[in-house]
Amino acid sequence: MSAASKTATGNFFEDFHVGRVIHHATPRTVTSADAGLYTALTGSRFAVFSADSFAYNVGLPGAPLDDMLVFHMVFGRTVPDISLNAVANLGYAGGRFHKPVYPGDTLTATSEVIGIKENSNGRTGVVYVRSEGRNQDNERVLDYVRWVMVNKRDPASPAPETVVPELPEAVGADRLHLPPGLDAARYDTALAGSPHVWEDYAVGERIDHVDGMTIEDAEHQMATRLYQNTARVHFDGHAQKDHRFGKRIVYGGHVISLARALSFNGLANAFKVVAINGGQHTNPVFGGDTLYAWSEVVNKEEELGRPDVGSVRLRTVATKDHPCADFPDTGDDGKAHPAKVLDFDYTVLMPRRA
Amino acid sequence: MSAASKTATGNFFEDFHVGRVIHHATPRTVTSADAGLYTALTGSRFAVFSADSFAYNVGLPGAPLDDMLVFHMVFGRTVPDISLNAVANLGYAGGRFHKPVYPGDTLTATSEVIGIKENSNGRTGVVYVRSEGRNQDNERVLDYVRWVMVNKRDPASPAPETVVPELPEAVGADRLHLPPGLDAARYDTALAGSPHVWEDYAVGERIDHVDGMTIEDAEHQMATRLYQNTARVHFDGHAQKDHRFGKRIVYGGHVISLARALSFNGLANAFKVVAINGGQHTNPVFGGDTLYAWSEVVNKEEELGRPDVGSVRLRTVATKDHPCADFPDTGDDGKAHPAKVLDFDYTVLMPRRA
Amino acid sequence: MSAASKTATGNFFEDFHVGRVIHHATPRTVTSADAGLYTALTGSRFAVFSADSFAYNVGLPGAPLDDMLVFHMVFGRTVPDISLNAVANLGYAGGRFHKPVYPGDTLTATSEVIGIKENSNGRTGVVYVRSEGRNQDNERVLDYVRWVMVNKRDPASPAPETVVPELPEAVGADRLHLPPGLDAARYDTALAGSPHVWEDYAVGERIDHVDGMTIEDAEHQMATRLYQNTARVHFDGHAQKDHRFGKRIVYGGHVISLARALSFNGLANAFKVVAINGGQHTNPVFGGDTLYAWSEVVNKEEELGRPDVGSVRLRTVATKDHPCADFPDTGDDGKAHPAKVLDFDYTVLMPRRA
Repeated sequence: MSAASKTATGNFFEDFHVGRVIHHATPRTVTSADAGLYTALTGSRFAVFSADSFAYNVGLPGAPLDDMLVFHMVFGRTVPDISLNAVANLGYAGGRFHKPVYPGDTLTATSEVIGIKENSNGRTGVVYVRSEGRNQDNERVLDYVRWVMVNKRDPASPAPETVVPELPEAVGADRLHLPPGLDAARYDTALAGSPHVWEDYAVGERIDHVDGMTIEDAEHQMATRLYQNTARVHFDGHAQKDHRFGKRIVYGGHVISLARALSFNGLANAFKVVAINGGQHTNPVFGGDTLYAWSEVVNKEEELGRPDVGSVRLRTVATKDHPCADFPDTGDDGKAHPAKVLDFDYTVLMPRRA
Repeated sequence: MSAASKTATGNFFEDFHVGRVIHHATPRTVTSADAGLYTALTGSRFAVFSADSFAYNVGLPGAPLDDMLVFHMVFGRTVPDISLNAVANLGYAGGRFHKPVYPGDTLTATSEVIGIKENSNGRTGVVYVRSEGRNQDNERVLDYVRWVMVNKRDPASPAPETVVPELPEAVGADRLHLPPGLDAARYDTALAGSPHVWEDYAVGERIDHVDGMTIEDAEHQMATRLYQNTARVHFDGHAQKDHRFGKRIVYGGHVISLARALSFNGLANAFKVVAINGGQHTNPVFGGDTLYAWSEVVNKEEELGRPDVGSVRLRTVATKDHPCADFPDTGDDGKAHPAKVLDFDYTVLMPRRA
Repeated sequence: MSAASKTATGNFFEDFHVGRVIHHATPRTVTSADAGLYTALTGSRFAVFSADSFAYNVGLPGAPLDDMLVFHMVFGRTVPDISLNAVANLGYAGGRFHKPVYPGDTLTATSEVIGIKENSNGRTGVVYVRSEGRNQDNERVLDYVRWVMVNKRDPASPAPETVVPELPEAVGADRLHLPPGLDAARYDTALAGSPHVWEDYAVGERIDHVDGMTIEDAEHQMATRLYQNTARVHFDGHAQKDHRFGKRIVYGGHVISLARALSFNGLANAFKVVAINGGQHTNPVFGGDTLYAWSEVVNKEEELGRPDVGSVRLRTVATKDHPCADFPDTGDDGKAHPAKVLDFDYTVLMPRRA
């Protein structure tokens, strides 16, 4: 066995076929250290994740890990198998959070290939995977679809039969998983930081989150390593000098987390992410960039069958070096505002007025 | 309800009146992650906070969180309500540490307005608040007075009646709260890192702490986010470009923590801060600055009514890019040495010679 | 007692004599925060340290702290006494890991001077110490020899009698300490991230670890402070401006940790470091440098007296700003490749094929 074969090179387009299931390596016990570092790296303030007492009051056994932290932990496990040779991370769909994750839980991840399509250039193709994370009791904590553009190992290899999965535009209210035991009747809005509850948000309403956050290379590297995400573009500044942007690129998930943390100012009671409907990284982000964000209320489900909480579908847009008082967006021509870096479509729970 | 109103703008001078009590948002369960990050961000080495075994030996149930970490956690909660529109943080007085804080405790904070005074320019005013932090058992862990200069929302609004609280120059020995169970008879000075105990320090003595610590932007941002302190000047490098200093300003509390950590070299047995008598941030600190520190023994209380520990009132001065062998200070003309960034007046416990 | 004497100046060459035992200060309770920060700072992915479940499966009571994290914690305690006045860290030998360290353990360290030799210039000398770390039950967790070049306080002081200890070239298989309870029969290579086990590695084989990692000043400072290592060259950017390299130097141990983390890609099943045979830091590393690494299989012990694991002696070489496809090394003339920063000789355990 040669030395070269000891080093993992990741999967190429030819290595994926519909139905292939990949059990990802590196199980991960998550701890209060992950929660603390997440706070230090993002500044998140959502009360359910910040205090055990607040979590008890809404029926949970303690403060769970932030939903997006769970997403990054699961996503991180999939990188060596799914996206080490990815040219681009094209999209997300149908993401749902299931059982909350608590300090001490151990997460593992698997992915199933659910679609494949070679590009007309013959050098790359698109791979669709449904990835899921499970805890030590084999309970599902998260599943989501993502699709990535992957290099072929050999441009001459024949194209596989195209399979494009049908993907939901958004996760319907009937498919959401709410945390077992959740009861928001005693949710304390004053302690959470805002009087605005589910009834106060109108479909179409836009909120400028005002605050800005400058990203340092040390910060996004620490976050991305915490998730054991190994994509080289985030870490290898020497090699990046010869690439397109000339520098390290911030992990898109860190941008999502910062946008979510910034959204606290205006959405403090959006206390739990329950679905990821979609997301595009419209421009790369680099160390030294300052992120801003605004959100739009896309939809509100009248009925989750309960009086304590309602769901809100949000779209949070992040920009770099451009405050969001003018709500920079993608135009009707499909061209994103040059400062726009993220368009994230997700569903949150908010307490309802008693 | 309009979108604009969803975003918190903080309180302006007109929003404060004497007697107003504010229950601050975002309860915070502190964990060993906070302690670990505090060590990583400051390099603190005081033995009581570093090792459970050392804490047991002085009668505590385990290593508590560093006093200044507790201060920052409580202070962080107050920022969105007290100092989001602050022009300047003018001073601290009468700060006392009560019940020690242990990993797993959940902290909440409240503030009461105890003084108010409009400035003659009619555009700003000074607000005095007594803030306190409590744990999940409603036990007080810290209280302190601070006063800030806050913008008026409308310069035309009438001035309130001036109330300036009487503040102690320092917290007297009879008002100090020592940790329940504390017994320093078995305090191990060798393990703590210095043979110098209470008896060895003389009033007026000055100590150059020698070591220097360069601050990176990633570090002060992580520290300040860990405390969920949201003051924008620490994070928004893009907006700061157009402001007075052209760059992000380091949270003054991080400067205090670094000065305290540097003071270990010369004050290793100043094992517990029991009071904050006062403090001024005499110059702003920026990423890239190197901090140095020196201390002066201001006072020693002969009697705490016990043979194991004595209290020492200290003044620790921090400078930037200027080692402290010459003890740079504020002159008789009231002008601070240009390199001086902090003048912190506090009271510590030290073990007494048996 | 004068103020000057309060500040620790560290030991000079004259302060060491063979047989002197130093009990180092600052006991340290290690927690999951240390493990989490180590992951965030290095990106380590070795499964035994990443997941409790994986550790249970190989007979351990939970995920221990990474071996190199334990090394840094013990090493950090020794710095104020051994190497504060060191000119150079010359080498390591005979390092062995004993009892694994778990979150909650409290570490203390002692060193015994085992050799001493004044240099011919009369201004410096070499001091050999055997340092060891113990846990709260007084069980040894690590011991190792290192030798450092230390300044004399007074060049005129007489040279001591030279004592140079006999040091092993490598730790023999019969002297290795394996973790109590270890049973790798159920070691899951898929979950660990590589199919390559002990049998697959050949003596003389070289592995390019491919990936690169850029080091930020904030990162190495946080790592080094986490270990409470106080060597000034890592932190004081202002003073370093006037020194040889003009900037802060990365703690060599952080370089070792990054090289070990990079080696995962090719050595994923080298799941436990059991010995440190030697190591040289052949060039300084600075913030902004990008590390790469390659390894060579130096030796394989056929017999540890058990069928589940075998030991492999490795040499991992790290470079800066130079990918390792060409295996840059020290030439026959004894001159290290200019990009080479580390040559680390250590012994690992790998699972054997059933």
